[in-house]
Amino acid sequence: MIPDTTPAELEQALADAGGAAAALAASAPSVRAGWIRAVADALDAAVDELVPIAQRETSLPEPRLRGEVARSTGQLRLFADVLEEGSLLEVVIDTANPEGKPVPIPDLRRVLVPLGPVLVFAASNFPFAFSVCGGDTASALAAGCPVVVKAHPGHPELSVKTAEVMIEALRAAGAPAGTFGLVQGYDVGVAALKDPRITAAGFTGSVPAGKALHEIAVTRPEPIPFYGELGSLNPVFVTQAAVDARGNDIATGYVGSFTLGVGQFCTKPGLLFLPAGHGLTDQLVEATGGVAAAKMLNDRIADGFSSGLDRLRKVEGVRVLGEGGGATLLGTTVTELLARREEILEECFGPVSIVVEYASTDELLAAVAAFEGNLTATLHAEESADAELASKVLPLLTERAGRVLWNGWPTGVAVSWAQHHGGPFPSTVGSIHTSVGVTAARRFQRPVAYQDTPDALLPAVLQDANPAGISRRVNGTVTTAEVSR
Amino acid sequence: MIPDTTPAELEQALADAGGAAAALAASAPSVRAGWIRAVADALDAAVDELVPIAQRETSLPEPRLRGEVARSTGQLRLFADVLEEGSLLEVVIDTANPEGKPVPIPDLRRVLVPLGPVLVFAASNFPFAFSVCGGDTASALAAGCPVVVKAHPGHPELSVKTAEVMIEALRAAGAPAGTFGLVQGYDVGVAALKDPRITAAGFTGSVPAGKALHEIAVTRPEPIPFYGELGSLNPVFVTQAAVDARGNDIATGYVGSFTLGVGQFCTKPGLLFLPAGHGLTDQLVEATGGVAAAKMLNDRIADGFSSGLDRLRKVEGVRVLGEGGGATLLGTTVTELLARREEILEECFGPVSIVVEYASTDELLAAVAAFEGNLTATLHAEESADAELASKVLPLLTERAGRVLWNGWPTGVAVSWAQHHGGPFPSTVGSIHTSVGVTAARRFQRPVAYQDTPDALLPAVLQDANPAGISRRVNGTVTTAEVSR
Repeated sequence: MIPDTTPAELEQALADAGGAAAALAASAPSVRAGWIRAVADALDAAVDELVPIAQRETSLPEPRLRGEVARSTGQLRLFADVLEEGSLLEVVIDTANPEGKPVPIPDLRRVLVPLGPVLVFAASNFPFAFSVCGGDTASALAAGCPVVVKAHPGHPELSVKTAEVMIEALRAAGAPAGTFGLVQGYDVGVAALKDPRITAAGFTGSVPAGKALHEIAVTRPEPIPFYGELGSLNPVFVTQAAVDARGNDIATGYVGSFTLGVGQFCTKPGLLFLPAGHGLTDQLVEATGGVAAAKMLNDRIADGFSSGLDRLRKVEGVRVLGEGGGATLLGTTVTELLARREEILEECFGPVSIVVEYASTDELLAAVAAFEGNLTATLHAEESADAELASKVLPLLTERAGRVLWNGWPTGVAVSWAQHHGGPFPSTVGSIHTSVGVTAARRFQRPVAYQDTPDALLPAVLQDANPAGISRRVNGTVTTAEVSR
Repeated sequence: MIPDTTPAELEQALADAGGAAAALAASAPSVRAGWIRAVADALDAAVDELVPIAQRETSLPEPRLRGEVARSTGQLRLFADVLEEGSLLEVVIDTANPEGKPVPIPDLRRVLVPLGPVLVFAASNFPFAFSVCGGDTASALAAGCPVVVKAHPGHPELSVKTAEVMIEALRAAGAPAGTFGLVQGYDVGVAALKDPRITAAGFTGSVPAGKALHEIAVTRPEPIPFYGELGSLNPVFVTQAAVDARGNDIATGYVGSFTLGVGQFCTKPGLLFLPAGHGLTDQLVEATGGVAAAKMLNDRIADGFSSGLDRLRKVEGVRVLGEGGGATLLGTTVTELLARREEILEECFGPVSIVVEYASTDELLAAVAAFEGNLTATLHAEESADAELASKVLPLLTERAGRVLWNGWPTGVAVSWAQHHGGPFPSTVGSIHTSVGVTAARRFQRPVAYQDTPDALLPAVLQDANPAGISRRVNGTVTTAEVSR
């Protein structure tokens, strides 16, 4: 049992983070890259120690957890690479034009600087990738912000051990004390969120908790940005042509996706829209029945799933298509869904999903339009047969989701330059930013433009000679060349 | 007298904006560039009609207003250029890697899409550049968002006429009806801000109004981003070496800057820090006395200035150094400022500024540290003599401002790639975004990543062939080349 952080300990953590902010802001991006790689190396080296704790605390299987460590350390290394490449700083240089009309144009050099200490509310369902050493932490460190993580109570010992590994790696690599800290307890997290030293917060969790914390962050005397990933239904729409071409693959792929990780993915497909008369019910039911029972992350989540499932079963027009020890498949129609939209479209976190039959293309389009914001939305279709339909559906999905998939499954989020994890409200608060991928760092940076400042007094990344050789936009064109003036 | 927009008219304006959103989102960037250029051309063509109305309603002089029209239309054309260059869309393409470990990597293509209708609260002090046809409008249209402007009551007839010119230009250029609209009245603006069809808001104005509107925007059932520019003191710090080298120029430059446009710039230098014994008082007083009286923007602003000035005069430790018909110069010391920080550091909008004397380098640094967020902060120093001092002061200014100037004056904001207008709270709400410069559009865009989508069904800007030849990041490298897969 890990006790809550005491007020004195919280004060120390915030003072340490605040004290480290200026040194982090002044650190060269390549130096920060070194610290971040040291953290990645240390976590990889500790994997045999960390994974068994995670198994015990979250009931997730070993291969999944080892994969998650690799994903997390890969993410840290990607940010280190991008720090060295330079894009993360978005350096823009416009040299002076003394002949400018109506007035001379000054020399302006813009760079993104860190906001300051960032508070991260860790998630339960990815004890590495969206927790202590996850994407919010990686992107904030890359931005040059000290990080204070509020541990998720679902894996307290893992959180402490992960933090120890990270803090020791940062210390050994020469990062300032206070670069990273960990606190425990919900009230402690709220107190930290209200503290003026905290300049931004990231959150992954439930809609009610996310909304409550968001309101605290944005109504403080000094409001701060709050990036919350709150929940998502991730609907999948399947055309008749896709059923004809690949019905069996779709049925097994769907069941595999919604039951992956015991249905505890924020990208779990919560609804599958099939044309009436699709003929896949037997196969869907069989695949669902074959899913083995597995323990959920913790008792609270298991209880939440149990009551959510009970609620859904009782919604008028929703029936059980099939269930086994490890999963439940429900069924309804678009007519029923449109009649009881709020009841049917309430997320149930766990291994359950709903097959919804549509009777016509118009019903399919009406179903798409019934959705609010989601992390993902998927279309299974055939390119030639469905070209016209797809050209109608894809823009509607684009309006409602942050990632639009074609003939795929939304579980699994590769970390890359082009990745985006986030979507219109309520799937995220702050839909203009991503929580996964390179630009996640931008959530914790603000621009500063230096006007006519002598070269020697500029941050090195803005100096004419471009000593680090990073990518910069100079007079409108991206280049690694030095500036001549 | 222009009456407030009626509820029925507001409903029509919001319905029109909502109705235009999908067509704008689907429009090719080059087509939007054409619409925006048409607006710029129409405004330039109407300058002889618009400027006299602006003169009558704002009391600003003709040359300034003509310059402001040119600045506004130049800003519109810059956004058109950048739309064609492509950076505004931030296209990122990672091609698939079927051999990816632990799982194959899908093809991911990311682009920024418009949020939807944007509400713009126009400012009083720049009736063109930060009003109906200003930066918020230009950047939102470039992003592909319909715009509804809430007119500032300080120049109602100009607002109506400007909107007429813009609406007709957009119509003639083929933009969807509803691309741009104008509403009048504070309560109308609040009602619009609460409407679910509005997806983001921009604001330039006072701290109390900005805070109130911000709270409405972020506590709606569906919170939306609110970008507010609220106020700024724009302190200027002068070293002894700079006084020795250029004292006279600094004195006249300062008085020119704080009285420019009757002191009605958000970048007006509100305080000038000089070393005790600077010997510039006579010259400062003389320059201030020589400023001619000029009418302020409107009676409400004149009244606000009058009472603000009365308040400042009565603050203990603040004395009048000099005044003439058109400007007032106050004086105090760092000791007094630190003792009565809140009273002295309250913005007074108009032609007044405070000279603050510091007795030592430590006092100078303490004065810098006394400031909260500002749009700008300026250091006047000599590069060789002040190298060590400047290396201490510049990072402190960077922490507190969005633009850091060397040996210049903060009034005047060039529109360019590298420009940034915004700073830490309370100068702006949303300090990670800029309201001037190319990336201002990003405030009204969100990312969408398309996964494994057939080329022909992707937005043209994401297609392999790159038909528009825009700048894109492909597998980590910025290029205009086509994608081979």
